Amino acid sequence: MQRVCFLLKVKRERLADYKAAHQNVWPEMLDALRAAGWRNYSLFLRDDGLLVGYFETNDLQQARARMAATDVNARWQATMAPYFEALDGRRPDEGAEMLTSIFHLA
Amino acid sequence: MQRVCFLLKVKRERLADYKAAHQNVWPEMLDALRAAGWRNYSLFLRDDGLLVGYFETNDLQQARARMAATDVNARWQATMAPYFEALDGRRPDEGAEMLTSIFHLA
Repeated sequence: MQRVCFLLKVKRERLADYKAAHQNVWPEMLDALRAAGWRNYSLFLRDDGLLVGYFETNDLQQARARMAATDVNARWQATMAPYFEALDGRRPDEGAEMLTSIFHLA
Repeated sequence: MQRVCFLLKVKRERLADYKAAHQNVWPEMLDALRAAGWRNYSLFLRDDGLLVGYFETNDLQQARARMAATDVNARWQATMAPYFEALDGRRPDEGAEMLTSIFHLA
């Protein structure tokens, strides 16, 4: 099992909207994540917009590829893109910065 | 159950040492964390030293208070303090910046 942590930066002026959107994530998007093997997935936000994502999956490469292959993900990422800084034209799921795991205690 | 995410900043010149220390965390420290109710605890590092911690616990206030009451934690935090930036005299476990959970998918 892989534990994954990634970072993105939400624009300060869009923080409230971004939080509100995540109280009502589309059910199809949640279904697609589950079907693609994303488990125990959380998002955390710092006041300045730094966003931390954490999830668990059996195979990160496969989990990302499966999501990338869905229509609902393309629509969700297009809807979310304007909320983020510094994507340089990438989709949020492509622009996320992956961190390195250095410690785990079960 | 609470899912907790916190940030700290490791000094760039101490990154290799910090990683090495976390491949050999003292067994008493691991035991103390378990006894204090810290579960599924991971640390992730960005190349510039940004450190992300994630763990799960039934009661965050109690989990922190229980660790703070142990001798081994005082020794561990004192050993780790020189690795971090911007603690302003606080112990790392006191200086960690807590983030807000905005989304969860089981």
